[in-house]
Amino acid sequence: MEENKITNIIKETPLLEWPQQAWTNLQLVRQNSPLIQCITNFVSMDFMANTLLSAGASPAMIHSIDEIPEFTPKTLGVCINAGTLTPDWLRGMMLAAQVANQFKIPWVLDPVAAGGSSFRLNACLDLLALRPSVVRGNGSEILALFKGSVDSNSKGVDSVHGSSDAVEAAKYLAQQLGSVVAVSGAVDFVTDGDRVVCVHNGVPMLQKITASGCSVTALITAFVAVDPSHAVEATASALAIFGVASEIGMDMAKGPASLRTQLIDSLYGLDEATALGRVRISHF
Amino acid sequence: MEENKITNIIKETPLLEWPQQAWTNLQLVRQNSPLIQCITNFVSMDFMANTLLSAGASPAMIHSIDEIPEFTPKTLGVCINAGTLTPDWLRGMMLAAQVANQFKIPWVLDPVAAGGSSFRLNACLDLLALRPSVVRGNGSEILALFKGSVDSNSKGVDSVHGSSDAVEAAKYLAQQLGSVVAVSGAVDFVTDGDRVVCVHNGVPMLQKITASGCSVTALITAFVAVDPSHAVEATASALAIFGVASEIGMDMAKGPASLRTQLIDSLYGLDEATALGRVRISHF
Amino acid sequence: MEENKITNIIKETPLLEWPQQAWTNLQLVRQNSPLIQCITNFVSMDFMANTLLSAGASPAMIHSIDEIPEFTPKTLGVCINAGTLTPDWLRGMMLAAQVANQFKIPWVLDPVAAGGSSFRLNACLDLLALRPSVVRGNGSEILALFKGSVDSNSKGVDSVHGSSDAVEAAKYLAQQLGSVVAVSGAVDFVTDGDRVVCVHNGVPMLQKITASGCSVTALITAFVAVDPSHAVEATASALAIFGVASEIGMDMAKGPASLRTQLIDSLYGLDEATALGRVRISHF
Repeated sequence: MEENKITNIIKETPLLEWPQQAWTNLQLVRQNSPLIQCITNFVSMDFMANTLLSAGASPAMIHSIDEIPEFTPKTLGVCINAGTLTPDWLRGMMLAAQVANQFKIPWVLDPVAAGGSSFRLNACLDLLALRPSVVRGNGSEILALFKGSVDSNSKGVDSVHGSSDAVEAAKYLAQQLGSVVAVSGAVDFVTDGDRVVCVHNGVPMLQKITASGCSVTALITAFVAVDPSHAVEATASALAIFGVASEIGMDMAKGPASLRTQLIDSLYGLDEATALGRVRISHF
Repeated sequence: MEENKITNIIKETPLLEWPQQAWTNLQLVRQNSPLIQCITNFVSMDFMANTLLSAGASPAMIHSIDEIPEFTPKTLGVCINAGTLTPDWLRGMMLAAQVANQFKIPWVLDPVAAGGSSFRLNACLDLLALRPSVVRGNGSEILALFKGSVDSNSKGVDSVHGSSDAVEAAKYLAQQLGSVVAVSGAVDFVTDGDRVVCVHNGVPMLQKITASGCSVTALITAFVAVDPSHAVEATASALAIFGVASEIGMDMAKGPASLRTQLIDSLYGLDEATALGRVRISHF
Repeated sequence: MEENKITNIIKETPLLEWPQQAWTNLQLVRQNSPLIQCITNFVSMDFMANTLLSAGASPAMIHSIDEIPEFTPKTLGVCINAGTLTPDWLRGMMLAAQVANQFKIPWVLDPVAAGGSSFRLNACLDLLALRPSVVRGNGSEILALFKGSVDSNSKGVDSVHGSSDAVEAAKYLAQQLGSVVAVSGAVDFVTDGDRVVCVHNGVPMLQKITASGCSVTALITAFVAVDPSHAVEATASALAIFGVASEIGMDMAKGPASLRTQLIDSLYGLDEATALGRVRISHF
């Protein structure tokens, strides 16, 4: 078992004011360019990889069980996303989570459409039992994990619940698992089971861009990778920075496709003054 | 067996003039946000999902046989696309088509490169035998299905035949199957074996954007999902609306990549006056 | 065994000055629209297909062993990319390379992250033993193939070596295999083991766009497909044309996402005067 290598770099930094915290975490990603393994759905791969690259991280979409034991230990974070799930891919996800745990590498779970079917729900619950550093889902997904039952009103990947409906479920899950749980929505909630932090950045049109949720989960992975001992702060920071990039992008966008382009460009070029002026994080 | 839930909403609406019909169908998609399952090729997933989202539908890329029996009945439409076909994915496609039929959920087939190989042709013919609500292909693909033989001049996914070359083949297939058959090209033809409707919207540069055909097939699925008893009208409307969005996009595009961005943005923002002024559908 | 059909078209053209050579090769792609089969990773499929379409080629993403024996002989070039590798996909890659060899169809290997794991390295070495027409990788990938050992400092798909560090390794590999080897980086090097050609086009921000390397490998395949007897010239030309398109795109880009859009648009619209004025290729 190795220590995660990045911990030596950032050591025990004192906690900062939120905008400063978010900016500092982005700077850490840009400086360390953490290698992030993504085992994710086919829809999200392009947008997710470009999100990570624009933030300064180094993505690697590698999912085969034939190389996970050798490759995963080289990474600083693993992002596991249940989108286009099959039993075959699930085996790779489970193995990668186990290897990550063994090497104390943080890993993050995106339980896409967790309530969509029994197969999917059980897969997400099996992954959850391996205690990810962070779980990020929408209201419906977090409630499905909490209830442990299939959602008869499931709209697939789209939430039919507001994020605030799932705050108590998120707290309970966080306490049970020792994980940080984030619920995305009009306001994002991040909790370790004790504290609840609210992120107010973002724009509604993100819901019209496929894989925007998947991509912010990948960004959370990169932020947690460079500051694994402060997963609440890293998670809230990633949500805020992605949200700020979408807000800036929205000023220039004419629809969902140009928003996606502008978001990536804005994330790449985000400067300190803008980040400090725009990040809006509060306590619940 | 359940009735498709949306039929209660639109009931037996009288047929409208074509531009009004197309606009009404788009409105139905925006209002009902139908859940559309897509079992499609890897190339098309991002563009297809974003096309559906921009039109107001809710896409779900779910292909595993482990969840189709439970998930497919929750959808309002299924889009099946043979692009990056393997035996494994074909099993999921066949099962999804069967479940859709059982629950009277409309499903749409895109027989990508049907004449490219015996394996692919036989797969498409097996799917066709399950009688999709709609089949949408280019001239070469529809002719390959009609002839039931591999095309020695196949250019893969690109057509070497004009759409008008395939109108009689489309009519024959439609009569045999009881399906609506659409042939895309400079002019799109839509037939139920009796009537033939011509859609004149669209721009040639769409051929330079990968998966533009796949994406319009997904849009057809959404339009048929909200008006399953008028599949000719829904199919022609989807082709026209996608074509109008591409025409508006072309005014601002500098090449295929910016056209794709503009197309999605235009589809998202399309208003009634523009739709009514631009939709061009006629009888053969 | 058939002769590659395109050789009759271009016959034994005399070698031209480099900018004229690059422009001529692009014209050949536009005129012949070669069918290029791509067996590539999930991340790259969209960008790769759109790169080929914008250059005038006809991409087909077909990877199943069930259709390779019948489909691959119809193509003019095959692009094999090890990105999201599994044993299943590797079987398709090996078979496609063998069929291509049998029919004297040029094929090009992109050994993505070759040093990332033993499984990946051995897969790339097995493919290499089938003697591709061209191998294109970054410095770290070419060095991993040369050393035949896993890279303990691997950053996944991102290079930790400059391209110039790998020139001697590239020459050695080229001599051993009878292949052309290209090393991408700030300067690209192309060698047949004897000559070394340097391509100076391109912009650093390409490294922030996922699959930009994969896409240029696909473009190389199209260029070699229409001039298989001059693989050094075709490879250098493709690298230069892609680089020129990125330079023009950079003038209008505000970040990596808009650069990708502009690059594709510029590749589509590239004219003779711009190509002749911008292509910068020299001898080592």
